[in-house]
This record gives sequence, structure tokens and C-alpha cells, in this order.
Amino acid sequence: MFCFSKMHLCTIMSLLVIGSVAFDAIETPFGKTDKIIGGAASYITLSSSYFTKSINLVAVVGEDFPEAYISKLKDHGINTEGLQIKKGEKSFFWSGRYHNDMNSRETLVTELNVLGTFDPIIPESYQNCDYLMLGNLAPSVQSTVINRLKNRPKLIVMDTMNFWMDIALEDLKHTISMVDVLTINDEEARQLSGEYSLVKAARSIMAMGPKYLIIKKGEHGALLFGENEIFSAPALPLEEVFDPTGAGDTFAGGFIGYLAQTGDISFSNMKKAIIYGSAMASFCVEKFGSDNLIDLSQQTIDSRVQQFRNLSSF
Amino acid sequence: MFCFSKMHLCTIMSLLVIGSVAFDAIETPFGKTDKIIGGAASYITLSSSYFTKSINLVAVVGEDFPEAYISKLKDHGINTEGLQIKKGEKSFFWSGRYHNDMNSRETLVTELNVLGTFDPIIPESYQNCDYLMLGNLAPSVQSTVINRLKNRPKLIVMDTMNFWMDIALEDLKHTISMVDVLTINDEEARQLSGEYSLVKAARSIMAMGPKYLIIKKGEHGALLFGENEIFSAPALPLEEVFDPTGAGDTFAGGFIGYLAQTGDISFSNMKKAIIYGSAMASFCVEKFGSDNLIDLSQQTIDSRVQQFRNLSSF
Repeated sequence: MFCFSKMHLCTIMSLLVIGSVAFDAIETPFGKTDKIIGGAASYITLSSSYFTKSINLVAVVGEDFPEAYISKLKDHGINTEGLQIKKGEKSFFWSGRYHNDMNSRETLVTELNVLGTFDPIIPESYQNCDYLMLGNLAPSVQSTVINRLKNRPKLIVMDTMNFWMDIALEDLKHTISMVDVLTINDEEARQLSGEYSLVKAARSIMAMGPKYLIIKKGEHGALLFGENEIFSAPALPLEEVFDPTGAGDTFAGGFIGYLAQTGDISFSNMKKAIIYGSAMASFCVEKFGSDNLIDLSQQTIDSRVQQFRNLSSF
Repeated sequence: MFCFSKMHLCTIMSLLVIGSVAFDAIETPFGKTDKIIGGAASYITLSSSYFTKSINLVAVVGEDFPEAYISKLKDHGINTEGLQIKKGEKSFFWSGRYHNDMNSRETLVTELNVLGTFDPIIPESYQNCDYLMLGNLAPSVQSTVINRLKNRPKLIVMDTMNFWMDIALEDLKHTISMVDVLTINDEEARQLSGEYSLVKAARSIMAMGPKYLIIKKGEHGALLFGENEIFSAPALPLEEVFDPTGAGDTFAGGFIGYLAQTGDISFSNMKKAIIYGSAMASFCVEKFGSDNLIDLSQQTIDSRVQQFRNLSSF
């Protein structure tokens, strides 16, 4: 946060996050949950809140969404002015079951509810944001957000998934053409590009618009592609992945949160941001849902980042 | 090589390599080869020859094996006194086909020939070796080599594969109990341990004897497990993998070659050795068979290692 005046001329290095805020019900080999707080934007904002306190959320929930969950976000310094609460409607609900290897899951229930007609309204106080994180949503909703901002943010990061490649490919490509950084997983990179080699896939996807591509590889870490540079980040080898739900969103939140905190969007700083994102994701998967993102200390995060350093330095 | 006298009392930091020397015929989406030189020990010795010139080979071929191939090994400074040439017999022959993703292959032909009755005779001049690399072979043959050495080497590295887990598990476990470092791939680590988590798999396998475990993950790099330490090495993202045959052996050759060159078997030096091994493997897969291991310069290798450094530093 940089203030040039003590009066009203403040330039806030703010982060705007859009995505789902929802209920999840999760089954893993370790147990199952009732409806717990979920959705991309929940994970993204909780994760980024450890790096910047200027986070503005745009999302929609139904009347059934507990005030206590919203308070939890507020407690993390997240501005919920842009969180629409639809009277008489129900929140988005997803239920899934993970198999033994934790790499594959089946969706048991998807109830779009309020998300089906989501119109992302940007409060006036959210304008002039420097960093925009587009969590996984219909690409037409993501592009609407960009179009409703009066000034283009310094950096736009977009997450998406194979579902939109299957049903809304043209919309998706249009939105991808508007962003700076795209994050997808390796299978999605292959599907989107039609290339098996990730180097070729990255070149093909970056030709669609983004200057940077992050390919998430789960237990194998992540790759960051820039114009002429590649960075390979390790994943922390974990004894047990308890619940992978939200790991990608938590990664994205740590990534853009670190960039917003440091105000540096060079390739070299993006490498560090990826490590911070990976560290946050490694916490996320150690407990059910976002439970492990509620009460982390700076020391715990720094010490996890140091583990990544030890893991990959030679 | 450390000589304490100009006369006969020389302590040679030598590397003993045992494994197959064979013919391969390979089909990939990029083309197919006739019979070319193959076998674990060919790749291991060629790769390690860029690091140490004191390499002693124990292997067996048939009368059909061309002298020109043996000369190629000799040109790389490899001592072939222990290469048995069986009159009237044929060399081991393997033929395989890779699928489009290069991660799966089918074996078309396996003719054991001379390998079926291989008795690994250790020439007297090979005794007192400091480093022993047991290339993939029947585990009973691997343990015979250890038993025939008068003094235990400073470091014994063993490679193996799922085939022996299927048909000779007890022999395999016995040999594993005798070595310092085991190298296998991630699926094999899971099969051998019965654990899905690689952290748990590593703990279980190291309880069988080895102080170090290297888990090879192909395009995802490699993990080195020590008593209380883990190192994650990236793989170089390649435009195209032309032919993966021998990549694991080439990796092992670079790994033990670097250790023999530096004479340092600390965990910290093993990290570097893994990067050198990975660099050598990245050359191997760029051409058919061992073609790309014949004429590398020190500068080319150093520059590839620098690429690994750039790839993973943050």
C-alpha cells in the first residue's frame, strides 16, 4: 500500500478476486465432511490474505450462506462489499469423492443455484485495482469483470478448467486473450493446445495471448513459462494428502498475493511467488477444506518456504 | 585417480559397472531403428565416461556382437577386459515400441540368449573398486558380483525394475539389503513398498537396507531420499523426447560417474550428482539409442547443467 498523501489521494495496491463462494461436501479415504465452506474465491482470498490486506471479493451466495462464514473472511481482512447475497436463493453446492490415489475424483453433485445467473457487479470502491485474480468461473463472466473495470489492472491472472474447454471453448479463448497469466494443469494444457509436449503446449497457449503460463502438476510441482524462460517448482513430498480440494485455488491466491505484496511482476519475482503459492497449497491439502488456511503464522509460512528452498537447492 | 607412488602401489578410485550389453531395435512415433547398440551397461559406461576414466565393465555378449561397438566403448576409456564374448552364441536382444505419449511402451521381442546363463566373472585387475554400479539384471547376478569382490566398495548403487518384483521378489529384497543407493521409478517404488505416498514408500524401501533411494519420475524429474533429507530435481522441459530408451541408465551413469570423479558421497554432493545424471539423460533422449552420448564436450555438459540451475533457482 503506497500513500502519496495523508488526505485522499491514496494509490492502493489492491487485489480484486472473483470466483465462487460455495458449499462443498467432500469424501476422501480419510473421511467425509458435511457442507463446509468452499469455492475458488474462498480459497484464493484466504490464501492471499497472508500477503496483502487490501483484498476485494466479488462473488455470489444464497440466503442459506451462514454469516459466520462471511465473518471468517472479514476476519482475514477481506472486503466483502462485492459479495452478493441473493434472498430466497441457494448457494452453489459441489460434492465430490476422491479415490485412493487422490489424483482422480468423481463429482457426486453439482447444484449451480445462484451461480447460474451470476452477474459480477463491481462496487465503485473496487475500481483502480492493481491485481485481478479471475478464479475458475464461466469465461464469459470472467471477461465481463475485465470489461467492467475502468482501468486495466497491472496484472490479470486467470484460472480455468477442462469443463470450459469442453462446453465454451470460444468464450474461453476470448477471455484467455485478455489476461497476462493463465494457470491450468498439465492435462488441461494438453487438451487446450492439442500438444503432448508441455514446451510445445506452452508456446501454443501463450500465442493465444498470455505472456506467462503456469502449468500445475499436483504432486510433481509446477512449471512457469515466460517468453524465453522456464521455471520448475517442486512440490513438497508429503506423507499424506488429506484432501486436495482447493489446492489449485490456494496456490493461485498465494501466487497473486505475494506479487501484490511485493509489487514486482518480473519473471524472477514470479518464481518466488510460485514457491509461496506452492507452500500455501501444501498447507491446504493437510486438512479438510480450508481448515488449515484459517490460522497460519508468518513463521509457519516462512519455515515452509525454507523447506522448498532446501528441497530444490543444489 | 590418486597415485601414492610412481611404481605399483596405486589406489585407483575406480568404477565397476555390471549390466547388459545388447542389441536394441526401437520404434517411436519419429521412426524406427535396425539393431543398434543397447543394454544398461552401454548407457551407464558411456555416460559415466564423461566424468571418470577409470571404468571397468563386466558384461556378456555373443559372437555376433560387432568389434566396432566394443571399440566405441574402448574409445571412451572403458576397460572391456571383463566383457565376455561367447563363441557360437548370440547377444541379448530387445525390441520395443513407444506410444505417442512416450510414457508407455510395449516389448515386441526379448531374446535373452547369452544373458540367460550369465556368470559375472570379475577380473583380478577389477578388484578394490571404490564405486560399484549394478545395472538392471537378475538380482541374483547382482548379488553375486558383490559377493565376488574381496573388499566392499565405498558405494554400491543398484538399478532394477518391476519385472524382478514380479518374478524374483525375495532375491530382489536380498540384493537391495546389500546396497547403499537404490534407483527405481515412482510406479516401481509404489509396487515394491505397497504405499501410494512416495514419502511412505521411501521410508519402507530404505528400511530394507539402502541408506539412499532415488525415485525417477521421467518428465517430472527425480527425488533423492536420505535419512532425514529430501532433494527434488527437476527434469529439463524438452520440446520433444525422441527416444526414451536408456534414459534411466544414462542418469545412473552420470550420477555414479560424478560421485567417482569428486570422491564425495555426502548427501549434498549426491544432489549435484543427480543434476549431472539428469543432464546426461536429457541428452540421451534427444536422439535414437546412445547416439547422443558419443561425442559430447565438457562445455556442452556444463552448459546443460547451468540450464538446470536456471530452471530451479529462485
